[in-house]
Amino acid sequence: MLLPSVSERSALTRRREQLAKALGSAAALLASSRPRPRNYAADQFPFRASSHFLYLFGLATPDGVGLYDGQGWTLYLPEPGPDDALWDGAVPGFAEIAERTGCTVRSRAELPAALKGRDVAALPTPDLETCLDVAALLGREVRPGHLAAVDVPLADAMIALRLRHDDAAQAQLRQAAEVTVLAHMAGMRATRPGILEAAVRAAMEAEFVSRDVRPAYQPIVTVHGEVLHNLRYDHTLREGDLLLADVGGESPAGFACDVTRTWPVTGRFSTTQRELYDVVLRMQKASIDAVQPGTRYRDVHLAAHREMARGLVALGILRGDPEELVVDGVTALFFPHGVGHLLGLDVHDMEDLGDRAGYAPGRTRSPEFGHRSLRLDRDLEPGMAVTIEPGMYQVPAILSDARLMARAKDRLQRDVLARYADVRGIRIEDDVLVTSDGNEVLTAAIPKEASDIEAVMTSSARPAPGR
Amino acid sequence: MLLPSVSERSALTRRREQLAKALGSAAALLASSRPRPRNYAADQFPFRASSHFLYLFGLATPDGVGLYDGQGWTLYLPEPGPDDALWDGAVPGFAEIAERTGCTVRSRAELPAALKGRDVAALPTPDLETCLDVAALLGREVRPGHLAAVDVPLADAMIALRLRHDDAAQAQLRQAAEVTVLAHMAGMRATRPGILEAAVRAAMEAEFVSRDVRPAYQPIVTVHGEVLHNLRYDHTLREGDLLLADVGGESPAGFACDVTRTWPVTGRFSTTQRELYDVVLRMQKASIDAVQPGTRYRDVHLAAHREMARGLVALGILRGDPEELVVDGVTALFFPHGVGHLLGLDVHDMEDLGDRAGYAPGRTRSPEFGHRSLRLDRDLEPGMAVTIEPGMYQVPAILSDARLMARAKDRLQRDVLARYADVRGIRIEDDVLVTSDGNEVLTAAIPKEASDIEAVMTSSARPAPGR
Repeated sequence: MLLPSVSERSALTRRREQLAKALGSAAALLASSRPRPRNYAADQFPFRASSHFLYLFGLATPDGVGLYDGQGWTLYLPEPGPDDALWDGAVPGFAEIAERTGCTVRSRAELPAALKGRDVAALPTPDLETCLDVAALLGREVRPGHLAAVDVPLADAMIALRLRHDDAAQAQLRQAAEVTVLAHMAGMRATRPGILEAAVRAAMEAEFVSRDVRPAYQPIVTVHGEVLHNLRYDHTLREGDLLLADVGGESPAGFACDVTRTWPVTGRFSTTQRELYDVVLRMQKASIDAVQPGTRYRDVHLAAHREMARGLVALGILRGDPEELVVDGVTALFFPHGVGHLLGLDVHDMEDLGDRAGYAPGRTRSPEFGHRSLRLDRDLEPGMAVTIEPGMYQVPAILSDARLMARAKDRLQRDVLARYADVRGIRIEDDVLVTSDGNEVLTAAIPKEASDIEAVMTSSARPAPGR
Repeated sequence: MLLPSVSERSALTRRREQLAKALGSAAALLASSRPRPRNYAADQFPFRASSHFLYLFGLATPDGVGLYDGQGWTLYLPEPGPDDALWDGAVPGFAEIAERTGCTVRSRAELPAALKGRDVAALPTPDLETCLDVAALLGREVRPGHLAAVDVPLADAMIALRLRHDDAAQAQLRQAAEVTVLAHMAGMRATRPGILEAAVRAAMEAEFVSRDVRPAYQPIVTVHGEVLHNLRYDHTLREGDLLLADVGGESPAGFACDVTRTWPVTGRFSTTQRELYDVVLRMQKASIDAVQPGTRYRDVHLAAHREMARGLVALGILRGDPEELVVDGVTALFFPHGVGHLLGLDVHDMEDLGDRAGYAPGRTRSPEFGHRSLRLDRDLEPGMAVTIEPGMYQVPAILSDARLMARAKDRLQRDVLARYADVRGIRIEDDVLVTSDGNEVLTAAIPKEASDIEAVMTSSARPAPGR
């Protein structure tokens, strides 16, 4: 069990104090998680505690429960079993955990008595088994994706806290970014025609694994970037392919990094690839420039679409007024997802609470194709971290959909588009922290100018992967 | 979705036919699994279908259900949603899946009608959510670790089938072994003082990931081999340490390999390490020699203990009659786990069904310390695959337990043992297939003689990892 450091302890204590202040005399419970079985009980996926629990206690420990009883916090943990030391070695005692978390620790066996007769708010965990445990403890339904009335103030208080990252959280986001930089550099350097996508993935993940870092999400490393959630790694890289890598690491305390780069398999973009790449890069820079305190995030999303419209018109792929091309949903045909989302302990931060975290009160998702996939529409505030990840894709399922394509009318020049057949999908994604006077790109050290990528990939002095 | 090959199709068809024959007119249902969320619904662990479903249908597809209605098999699969092609790309249609699995395929929407009014046996999946789905479909309780009376004949029929691996399963076990050989060779070559355990893990896993292979279980790569389930990778390797690596890959169809090697961080065993290493190696060879058709597996386990007793007496660590040292549980103080287990689609094959798979009818676990951890006690038959993995550990939680140590009486020479302080944990594990005239070690290509390990580690011509 990794214990929080002293600097983390003060942040954890402050977070619990702030949440207590927001809750007043209302009791609240946050559970960690059970280990999740893969094949059978003893063969498990790597353990991940729930993010709300990690945020308040910093402990990646199974079966923990934090309880605020209206006055103070107590952490209830399972007591070690008689054989635990044999199988799992020495584990820290309750006194040490109390010292490092700054929170009273008691045996989980005492939890039912502490809950007795109380109306206690809780947030569901992604782990259904833990939800059922908590439901049994509270005598009511608790399930992922569902909040009871009593849970809503807790959810809103947690969202208010986690939306703006404190110094400790920002330090973790930077740590996650640092190792992700190494992964993307290793990926660019490992890429060459004839190998599998999986081989590039291996080079990238080795940067994580060798430093005892976990991927924050299942990596996408594909020559078929037009398949947006592509989790296959079995294609062979060929000359003329672009490789899209959406890969990010997780910090020791569980904070995520989320970065995409797209690079040519040969190390050199073709003219057509370079032209579309530069359109996406301008989309991304315009969006990052729009990330400022007070900006509505939907406008960041639309800034990317406007830049895409201008760029595709300049290339002759689209005709017409750029603003109208955005409003009529023509750009969404090539950029069918949102420009980004909240980032924190979750890659899509607090998406376990649905759109309650991503959408400001009173705002809802657009019903329009493409725009309905936008996960965030809040006014940006200092301390928020967001991803900026526009893309340009030629998706067969879209381009062959007459109903969808009808919106383009005669404004799409299919013959011009056909010249760009060597581009299936491009995405460029960075993690951006909103600051009091603008923003800071946490992942700026990863090359994204086409010429910089080419320089990394064709440098004769390629350092060996792993160092 | 990876579809079964033609040779797999005939094996899948044969397995379903054999199961149908055993079931007669009794209906039975085998479910795949849901994707398991890590942080929230859309952030998932890598998908793994349940092993029983994989065994019969060879499809790593979520939410599939195979139904035997007393006459024939039908595979019920979810129909693709309207946006699936956008996010997930083209997926094979039902006709193609039917062709490749050799089984009729229908929409999952038709499943409730097919179940109506039937008494249907089912096996729980490790995924609780899928169990709850199946429970709702069948109108009764279905949960991991539990069998209803109607389920028992299905469990027993499945065990009877999966216990003896058919040619297709054996081919998969060999494939899993082949890539595991590469991982262990890479691990030995990557090891040197001053790096993290995680760095060796990274070199080993890169052999899997680069070939699009998954680890069959969470790897153990540790200088603290005495912590039996050590999943930490954050220690720095120091001169004089032994590194224990328990790492295995999974074949495309989901079959496991499970191998442990222990090697010196410097590439050279110390005299004391070598002496104990050779004891464990003799234990392992004696156990492998005992793997024969008709042998009771408990006797394989005891063969390892007897060899340990002889070895430790020869070194002066123990005194007394070797047979008595085994019977009195003295060797179990240094070898507190079982000598191995079944191997197949699960690393501990069919452990989801408890000891029903591992223990022959009428046999139960020993209540004795150490021996109670033995997972298998069947008479071996051709086609069974087992691991053979004796070890020797100095576990502080045992050596400091006066009650446990009392069994040694004056037969433990603590002063002699103290000279072996540079050995904390050694385990040597291979995968062994029972053949009609003996056995075949599937993982024989991984060096295990101390001198062979030293030769690999100190060879000047170390091939680069990844090839």
